[in-house]
Amino acid sequence: MKTVQKLTLDDARVIMAGAEAKAREIGVDMDVAITDDNGSLLMFHRMDNGRITSIDVAISKAFTAAAARRSTRAYGEVSGPGGPAFGIHVSNQGRFMIVAGGLPLFVDDQIVGGVGCSSGTPDQDEIVAQAGIDAFLRSLGREAAP
Amino acid sequence: MKTVQKLTLDDARVIMAGAEAKAREIGVDMDVAITDDNGSLLMFHRMDNGRITSIDVAISKAFTAAAARRSTRAYGEVSGPGGPAFGIHVSNQGRFMIVAGGLPLFVDDQIVGGVGCSSGTPDQDEIVAQAGIDAFLRSLGREAAP
Amino acid sequence: MKTVQKLTLDDARVIMAGAEAKAREIGVDMDVAITDDNGSLLMFHRMDNGRITSIDVAISKAFTAAAARRSTRAYGEVSGPGGPAFGIHVSNQGRFMIVAGGLPLFVDDQIVGGVGCSSGTPDQDEIVAQAGIDAFLRSLGREAAP
Amino acid sequence: MKTVQKLTLDDARVIMAGAEAKAREIGVDMDVAITDDNGSLLMFHRMDNGRITSIDVAISKAFTAAAARRSTRAYGEVSGPGGPAFGIHVSNQGRFMIVAGGLPLFVDDQIVGGVGCSSGTPDQDEIVAQAGIDAFLRSLGREAAP
Repeated sequence: MKTVQKLTLDDARVIMAGAEAKAREIGVDMDVAITDDNGSLLMFHRMDNGRITSIDVAISKAFTAAAARRSTRAYGEVSGPGGPAFGIHVSNQGRFMIVAGGLPLFVDDQIVGGVGCSSGTPDQDEIVAQAGIDAFLRSLGREAAP
Repeated sequence: MKTVQKLTLDDARVIMAGAEAKAREIGVDMDVAITDDNGSLLMFHRMDNGRITSIDVAISKAFTAAAARRSTRAYGEVSGPGGPAFGIHVSNQGRFMIVAGGLPLFVDDQIVGGVGCSSGTPDQDEIVAQAGIDAFLRSLGREAAP
Repeated sequence: MKTVQKLTLDDARVIMAGAEAKAREIGVDMDVAITDDNGSLLMFHRMDNGRITSIDVAISKAFTAAAARRSTRAYGEVSGPGGPAFGIHVSNQGRFMIVAGGLPLFVDDQIVGGVGCSSGTPDQDEIVAQAGIDAFLRSLGREAAP
Repeated sequence: MKTVQKLTLDDARVIMAGAEAKAREIGVDMDVAITDDNGSLLMFHRMDNGRITSIDVAISKAFTAAAARRSTRAYGEVSGPGGPAFGIHVSNQGRFMIVAGGLPLFVDDQIVGGVGCSSGTPDQDEIVAQAGIDAFLRSLGREAAP
């Protein structure tokens, strides 16, 4: 057997607050999803002008980032025509999302969750997801992304 | 055109706080989902011991209650073998949930959302969903369920 | 080869007008779907207070009635536990609807379409579907259901 | 809570009449779908030579345009290989349509619905969807697209 760390709902609240604050700062209402290490949904908030289509996209981004332990952007880079992972996006019943905006959450090099955002441009989505992760790492006394 | 009222994310926070407080009071961690009037997800929280299977069940309960404008319990009563709506539970891609624990949210007799809970018994689930609705109606100065 | 008769969009308009008139008469806004002989959608109208969940249910009722050439009520009667068709409702990706309110449309004993209604009780749904069929048969100079 | 405007069935009739008139004018029978602001189907008509495959395509175009608040053409432009949203088309259970012919309907800068057309070329589909929107805006005394 092995011992792993799991996110609690209170941990998710810290991540969500960080993401929502960044979304308000850049002026783009978002759909924000947070999953556990398995990619199972832990928390979801749709801000007032978040898109309806982004409900599914945000949840799938968080699922993919956690369950594949890699950013959705990184998958996008290798999943275009001619790329080594072309076609992967139809797997997992279409939930394998390769658009930027989904980030894995590691603590001590161990996967503990995923954060997925949608409604802005993919770059904006990723900035908001990163802000959620940074807020959490800071709350642990860890160093956030530079 | 007609004019209707829509829930905001802040409204959903009030509902969620009411549901979480009741879940803690009865000692059963829940998955709680809140949708808008069309059944589209607005907010989801999985408490620390909420079930993984209940993610989908809670979301589908909230969807059904809002989009059909009726409690999932009421549908369960007419959808058993021999009942007039037997078979309805496979509609909407299996998202039509007929297990108690999903309640429609009406304000001034107009549907504005749905609340779905899962992880406890169906009766416990419904009590927690009702507590969310009551907290919201009270915040509006409306009378909550007796 | 064989020659068959196919509904036109104008035929569907006659059916829809008959159904909408009956729905208004009984005071229940409906979702009304009309398919061709294959069960493929020809027309769909959601009245102002029609249910969101009934979009799928009405379309599936019309599909089932046309494609199985039998009322959804008749299937409901043989599809309960212990019945000879128990389990049929999960076939066709859950689109095989066995709740009353879907009727096949025959002209000269030949299937030409299906009408499916949802939002009222199954009995109300069926009355509205029948009214659509009757209006069409009358427009052809055929005798409507007694 | 916030107050929004919703399309009625009578509003959808105006949009549909405008789209059908344009389809006849350009001589291409269409499948035309109209949704509410959440992307839930309000009305669907298949003209006599409309395609069977276009039933799903038209409905998904209308869904996408309304629920993402953006034309499906605009999504197509950023969702090709190498584009920032490549892969988005498999989201929402494959209902995220990025082929031109789906347009969002805004009234007073607020999303109220979507119109999706299919059976012609994507350009023809979009022209017919736009004609439906223009007819509706004119009926409100608003200025239609130039």
